[in-house]
Amino acid sequence: MTTEKDKDRESGTRLDPKFDSAGLLSAVVTDDSSGDVLMVAFMNAEALQKTLDTGIAHFWSRSRQSLWKKGETSGHVQEVVEIRTDCDQDAIWIRAKPAGPACHTGRTSCFYRRIIDGKLEHVA
Amino acid sequence: MTTEKDKDRESGTRLDPKFDSAGLLSAVVTDDSSGDVLMVAFMNAEALQKTLDTGIAHFWSRSRQSLWKKGETSGHVQEVVEIRTDCDQDAIWIRAKPAGPACHTGRTSCFYRRIIDGKLEHVA
Repeated sequence: MTTEKDKDRESGTRLDPKFDSAGLLSAVVTDDSSGDVLMVAFMNAEALQKTLDTGIAHFWSRSRQSLWKKGETSGHVQEVVEIRTDCDQDAIWIRAKPAGPACHTGRTSCFYRRIIDGKLEHVA
Repeated sequence: MTTEKDKDRESGTRLDPKFDSAGLLSAVVTDDSSGDVLMVAFMNAEALQKTLDTGIAHFWSRSRQSLWKKGETSGHVQEVVEIRTDCDQDAIWIRAKPAGPACHTGRTSCFYRRIIDGKLEHVA
């Protein structure tokens, strides 16, 4: 059922994030220059607020169960160029200027393999 | 702790999706022409398999708790141009050729508002 609150969330100008039962939103980061998807992660309320306050991408690490400033250790922070939310405000899209590779494997993007005929193929 | 299975998942060519405790993966769809993020959703094993088998994006609707062929009602299906997975295989990136708007509001992308100073601003 679509409620008045849902309608306001979709058409309004009020930031009203819809966190799921675990308190999370999906967050996708693209490279503002190449347009490539760099990574997909999650944000809790604190991660979203820190991202908005600092202009640097923060996430929630589900495996470590802790706030995660991307690049805190590696220095490969992601500077926010633009941040958007979607229709029902349960996802975030960040267009970022990355200071280095997004992936912990050293690759520019975490999405370095395509699926072909049920197998993975490394993208050049 | 990083296990051998984790390492294989990261560097190998075997498709070995890492579904979360709810049996889901994150899935992001971009427009193959514009590069814009169209939507972010979830896939369960069946949705991923249907997507791979048919070349048309399928998701799992958390609100309806059912398989969701995008565009089944509207006709705005998303044809898969390329499908990738990420380092730990818990997310999917689809570059798609959409047959119509991705958003149920009629907008091309669900991400039609940017966040500026804590408020939402419609993107032209």
